[in-house]
Amino acid sequence: MVKRCSLCGASAVTWIPESKQYLCAEHYLEYFERRVLKTIEKFRLLKNVKKLLIAVSGGKDSTVLLYVMHKFFSREINLVGFTIDLGIGKYSRESTEIAIRNYKKLGIEYIVVNLKRSYGFDIDDSVRFRKWIKRPPCSICGIVKRYLMNKVALEINADAIATGHNLDDLALFMMSALQGGKVEELTKLTLYNPSINGFVAKIKPLGLVSDKETLLYALISGLEFYEEECPYAPQRGLRTTIIKALDVAENNHPGFKRYFVLNMIRRVIPKLPKPQGRIMRCAICNMPASNNVCSFCKIRARINEVIQKYRNK
Amino acid sequence: MVKRCSLCGASAVTWIPESKQYLCAEHYLEYFERRVLKTIEKFRLLKNVKKLLIAVSGGKDSTVLLYVMHKFFSREINLVGFTIDLGIGKYSRESTEIAIRNYKKLGIEYIVVNLKRSYGFDIDDSVRFRKWIKRPPCSICGIVKRYLMNKVALEINADAIATGHNLDDLALFMMSALQGGKVEELTKLTLYNPSINGFVAKIKPLGLVSDKETLLYALISGLEFYEEECPYAPQRGLRTTIIKALDVAENNHPGFKRYFVLNMIRRVIPKLPKPQGRIMRCAICNMPASNNVCSFCKIRARINEVIQKYRNK
Repeated sequence: MVKRCSLCGASAVTWIPESKQYLCAEHYLEYFERRVLKTIEKFRLLKNVKKLLIAVSGGKDSTVLLYVMHKFFSREINLVGFTIDLGIGKYSRESTEIAIRNYKKLGIEYIVVNLKRSYGFDIDDSVRFRKWIKRPPCSICGIVKRYLMNKVALEINADAIATGHNLDDLALFMMSALQGGKVEELTKLTLYNPSINGFVAKIKPLGLVSDKETLLYALISGLEFYEEECPYAPQRGLRTTIIKALDVAENNHPGFKRYFVLNMIRRVIPKLPKPQGRIMRCAICNMPASNNVCSFCKIRARINEVIQKYRNK
Repeated sequence: MVKRCSLCGASAVTWIPESKQYLCAEHYLEYFERRVLKTIEKFRLLKNVKKLLIAVSGGKDSTVLLYVMHKFFSREINLVGFTIDLGIGKYSRESTEIAIRNYKKLGIEYIVVNLKRSYGFDIDDSVRFRKWIKRPPCSICGIVKRYLMNKVALEINADAIATGHNLDDLALFMMSALQGGKVEELTKLTLYNPSINGFVAKIKPLGLVSDKETLLYALISGLEFYEEECPYAPQRGLRTTIIKALDVAENNHPGFKRYFVLNMIRRVIPKLPKPQGRIMRCAICNMPASNNVCSFCKIRARINEVIQKYRNK
């Protein structure tokens, strides 16, 4: 039997367990946007932001982020899209194409960096030469993304970088950091990370909407996004275990993740000591770094060296 | 097929996933005791303790605690058992009897307080008159236990109170406190809570052995313990949800809870600000309190008032 929207009686597309409401497509979009706008307002994510770099992979989260930011803020804020072609075969090719199509469709200024062309290596190389590089590709990919986002944001004088991390990402990262006792990582798991030591501020406008909610918004809005997961995404391991456990909690107690993330952000994380760190510059690229040479330049040198040495093996 | 002990080849009683070992009864008992003794040593739980009050309900955890403390420390430390007859029908009657039998068997000095006889009310009253008292029985039971443990420990000049909380209890309490953003509660979730503001120090020697491990130890050692759960223990709700989620994590990733609890204790909790609080005395009972009148005296007065008023309803 078709359920009816609790607000208007039209046929419903979803059930919001926390507020015990069925919502139709129209009211669902409203609900989702209101939640994102409230997050931005309450946590002052766009305070003093005149130019914003939006990190877009082409997947559902970053596509929804781009779309919502454009819909509500393109008049007041100079929005610039940013996509990295990470060189993960078809995955990177197609998702980058989709990102570019969305930029064009919305008329948003954008920057695309091709990792291989600009820096001589890509993520496929980090997998192909893995046994010599001795660092998992996901870790390298993280370093690359953080470095390039920050570099480009500095170059264009952006006041902040927006990423598409959602509620499920935050809950997972928090639980992993807690389980591993990683206090410094925990302190960064907020919706607004201020600019510190030369790093540009970062915001997570989708941090309080769930994975499913974001997917439904993308589908109902008819957004074009890349649907496949990264082929290197781990299918097992601690990360998968924590995702499963959090899903059990959420299914038994709808709203579990939202309360957990909100209480961590509001009450627990602010009580932890902020990481101090010094303002340093990388001796190679002159970008902000926490060591003499930044992680990106180190890994770039290492992979390029390995490629030269073992390319024919 | 019977599995063989990885250490001696005798028939195994259990599998320890973290160390990937099958163990026979004898080696299991050794393993368990070693873990408890290591916990006591590493976290200096018995430093400067000459007299220890052991809180014993008669259930498996506190019975194992009593037995292990007696086995290893009865020569150096003056051990005193402490049991409260909470007045939860047959549950309290039988578990108290078992506790007393164990004290006698081991030749341990002990104190039993009958809540109804000493203070005019019991937990069954708090359930029977619930609608007038407006406070869940589990919350009242917690106040009663904490108050009486501390009172008796002060009266006999004990240096610390040992409770039977195990790894699963700690993981559950931590996750609940994190999800609810309860920072002050979190700071108390350690293996050693120092004496503060007139409250006696508390230790949790079983804090790093699991529920199952403790049960197996009790069974193999042939200890007599009360097997039933409290009839008022909630069968649903957030607590049950968190237990389920943590069990999923543990089953997928053996050792999950132990790493979580250890990392919380070692790395996260020490970074949180310690609760300050003032040294106060309850105007009624003169025991340490965090308000003018302590929670116990408040709830005692309230329940006794309600009993007088509604006893015939």
